[in-house]
Amino acid sequence: MEFTAKLIADFLGGSVDGDPNVKVHTVAKIEEGFPGSLAFLANPKYIPYIYTTKASIVLVNNDFVPDQPVEATLVRVNNAYEAFASLLNLYAQSKQPKSGIEEPSFIHKSAQIGKDPYIGAFSYISEGAVLGNNVKVYPQVYIGPKVKVGDNTILYPGVVIYEECVIGSNCIIHSGAIIGADGFGFASSEETNYKKIPQIGNVIIEDYVEIGANATVDRATMGSTILRKGVKIDDHVHIAHNVEVGENTVMAAQTGVAGSTKIGKNCMFGGQVGVSPHVKIADGVKAGAQAGISGDIRKPGVIVLGSPANEIGKQRRSMAVYKNLPELMNKIHELEQVVEELRSKLNK
Amino acid sequence: MEFTAKLIADFLGGSVDGDPNVKVHTVAKIEEGFPGSLAFLANPKYIPYIYTTKASIVLVNNDFVPDQPVEATLVRVNNAYEAFASLLNLYAQSKQPKSGIEEPSFIHKSAQIGKDPYIGAFSYISEGAVLGNNVKVYPQVYIGPKVKVGDNTILYPGVVIYEECVIGSNCIIHSGAIIGADGFGFASSEETNYKKIPQIGNVIIEDYVEIGANATVDRATMGSTILRKGVKIDDHVHIAHNVEVGENTVMAAQTGVAGSTKIGKNCMFGGQVGVSPHVKIADGVKAGAQAGISGDIRKPGVIVLGSPANEIGKQRRSMAVYKNLPELMNKIHELEQVVEELRSKLNK
Amino acid sequence: MEFTAKLIADFLGGSVDGDPNVKVHTVAKIEEGFPGSLAFLANPKYIPYIYTTKASIVLVNNDFVPDQPVEATLVRVNNAYEAFASLLNLYAQSKQPKSGIEEPSFIHKSAQIGKDPYIGAFSYISEGAVLGNNVKVYPQVYIGPKVKVGDNTILYPGVVIYEECVIGSNCIIHSGAIIGADGFGFASSEETNYKKIPQIGNVIIEDYVEIGANATVDRATMGSTILRKGVKIDDHVHIAHNVEVGENTVMAAQTGVAGSTKIGKNCMFGGQVGVSPHVKIADGVKAGAQAGISGDIRKPGVIVLGSPANEIGKQRRSMAVYKNLPELMNKIHELEQVVEELRSKLNK
Repeated sequence: MEFTAKLIADFLGGSVDGDPNVKVHTVAKIEEGFPGSLAFLANPKYIPYIYTTKASIVLVNNDFVPDQPVEATLVRVNNAYEAFASLLNLYAQSKQPKSGIEEPSFIHKSAQIGKDPYIGAFSYISEGAVLGNNVKVYPQVYIGPKVKVGDNTILYPGVVIYEECVIGSNCIIHSGAIIGADGFGFASSEETNYKKIPQIGNVIIEDYVEIGANATVDRATMGSTILRKGVKIDDHVHIAHNVEVGENTVMAAQTGVAGSTKIGKNCMFGGQVGVSPHVKIADGVKAGAQAGISGDIRKPGVIVLGSPANEIGKQRRSMAVYKNLPELMNKIHELEQVVEELRSKLNK
Repeated sequence: MEFTAKLIADFLGGSVDGDPNVKVHTVAKIEEGFPGSLAFLANPKYIPYIYTTKASIVLVNNDFVPDQPVEATLVRVNNAYEAFASLLNLYAQSKQPKSGIEEPSFIHKSAQIGKDPYIGAFSYISEGAVLGNNVKVYPQVYIGPKVKVGDNTILYPGVVIYEECVIGSNCIIHSGAIIGADGFGFASSEETNYKKIPQIGNVIIEDYVEIGANATVDRATMGSTILRKGVKIDDHVHIAHNVEVGENTVMAAQTGVAGSTKIGKNCMFGGQVGVSPHVKIADGVKAGAQAGISGDIRKPGVIVLGSPANEIGKQRRSMAVYKNLPELMNKIHELEQVVEELRSKLNK
Repeated sequence: MEFTAKLIADFLGGSVDGDPNVKVHTVAKIEEGFPGSLAFLANPKYIPYIYTTKASIVLVNNDFVPDQPVEATLVRVNNAYEAFASLLNLYAQSKQPKSGIEEPSFIHKSAQIGKDPYIGAFSYISEGAVLGNNVKVYPQVYIGPKVKVGDNTILYPGVVIYEECVIGSNCIIHSGAIIGADGFGFASSEETNYKKIPQIGNVIIEDYVEIGANATVDRATMGSTILRKGVKIDDHVHIAHNVEVGENTVMAAQTGVAGSTKIGKNCMFGGQVGVSPHVKIADGVKAGAQAGISGDIRKPGVIVLGSPANEIGKQRRSMAVYKNLPELMNKIHELEQVVEELRSKLNK
């Protein structure tokens, strides 16, 4: 299938800048574009490539002004990245989805499966589990007793969902993610050994949540660990027991949130961020990669960096001085000498 | 089932402060308590909730003295957290345990299975494996050749135990944990490629160990990687080849310990701690979250923070100055100016 | 089987220093050596053990000069560690390899399997997958549609390879590793929700790559995430979408590389290193454990430390001053006082 620039612009509600009849049949990155491919330009770092790309069509933001001649046909839209995503979605949806129940699989007789399921081979669906319509359970998935899974949710191979957890609709859980393992709770007892605190709560994952490969979301000691609507967590992210993550908060890979912490809506955490237990974080907070947040952040929209994390402006100033600490130390030594000279002169 | 405050106090060896006949039928967090629920108060951060909780009964430490009226009935015990854990245990044990051997599962004819097993569907038990009594192997577990698993141990769905590893009694291994994968050992050879060092040792996990979801404990190059009795490691923890972790040491999520390091007893590591290879750490050492330990810690009971890790008092003082580095730099600049003025005055 | 020092020296192209007829039947670490065992000495930290080891034979580098009497027979070779690895390889190869196709397994009729396969029970091989000769697929592995796996590659239990990924020859992928899960790509849209960017690229893993347990390598948004020939990544390592890792680069456990970053050949990263997105790193760069690399590193062979990472010499000097910041602050306070005294004297 081939599409003209005009057709794509019409579909995206954009305008054509160049030859409206040029055709593409696939997509490519702007730096790897070739004739017949469509690329996009959103990150300013990639602007130089628009003057050299061999892509036939490039999606750009309406406000993009080239300062050299561009060979590709441009399709101008409000948001080039989002428009490109729409096209990729069309492309992805053109693939034939899996369906049916493969054998051997284990479906307890008390489990309820909605309409149009896919249940892959070697999957295990426990007693009392309830799956909505159009749920896709890939091979080797484990769904524990009384688990609920909402409509259109996809569980990729090897996902494990422990007993009584609740997964919303339109969620995507990637391979190796473990939902509902015991929280890390031990009471130090008078004997040398620790005593396990049974974790009798569960995990609630609301709608439109995406969970990365090998991520873990632990069940609550009591009550629920909660990921609100639209939360996205990347690979290897760890959410401890009794944590609550607010709507549309996004966490990059290998971030960890310790027990009972409450994170607001629309937060964005970089990779390898750590958050201490029993902390409260306001809405819209951003944390740079490897930040270590050990106390409450009460001001919405704050950006923090570093470990221990500090407000970005302050942290950057400290970081700048840190790089020059040896010079600073030398300055102090020089000052000491000068002052000593002055003193001896003055005391003579 | 309902229980009176008096009955609970008697069971726990505590005393009632309030109405001994008030009844509860479930448990709740103190901040979410409701009539008919039992809560507990251990962390001082939660004291304010005891004056507002709707829980009918609250377990408190003997030495707790309210400074406002409390509506709930208090049950006073030596250790409220531990007492609460005992009650949760009772609750958890009331659930019907899994048992029997589900089909299809793969049990090699040379494998030995003890009394009262649970072997879930799609589990794989290799040649020469030996399982003790009352072992619970959830679905989709892999147990390699000649692996030994002690009595009462629980392996949750998707656990993998490589060849010849030894798991003790009364252990809990959560989903996705991988025990005995190859240590990361390569010899740089004269060709450009690295040469793999075969990892011919194993992993030994002693009794009463709990291992979190998606944790990894690598097999030794030679000899054994060892987790001693009572060790608890959280989700995503990585224990490299030939490490030894002493009795009752506890590590929070995403901590990593590099090869051949030896960690003492009763240590406590926060989340995302890293420990360098070939390091020795004394008993009772505590490391704050994200600490990076790159050398031996010989003094038992030391508390360290930061990366590189330093003794807590020193580190805190450095951290405090770090936050004010820009002010410090300004001070030095001012000093330089003043000194320069003094010098020119003096030399006039 | 027993081997004499002479036979071992001949096999390794080395020379005997001691009794050429002493025999060994197994291997041991030098500090745990016992009569009948062979050990090696490569790391200078372990030199003291050569004077106390009970091992019968110790492999040492040609240039090792003992400064005390040594009881063990020494076999001198060019590279003791590599020579020892060769012996371990011989030992490891003496084990009987798995072969055949176990039941139940799921092999789509359109999948192509090469000669001498091992396909473990509960493994799933999707439509259009192509496996080379002598591939070992352990139990509970998932191989997605149109995946290619080269000759002699080993996939340990529970490995997941998503659709259309390409794995080279002679690779080893450890349990729980997830290859080809979706990259973490979302477009912020005008509604509050994020919009998923479909990830339509794949992962290409070249020959002789080893991937640790529970590692993740995400598929590209478009194009390919690439691990070049000979790359070794340890447990829990995360490689994001569209990353390229150059030949023979080695990364220790829990390291994470963010999207679209390009890493050169022969780099060595310690554990828990983080690399920002869209960064370029030259060949031969070394990063210490927990380093945070947030910008390009253009100079080949540079060594960096710290977060944010800096060149090792500079970082060490800053680290040294950091430890003494409180003393530095005190010095400044003293200076201020002295200067103040001088000033008042001078102004009198």
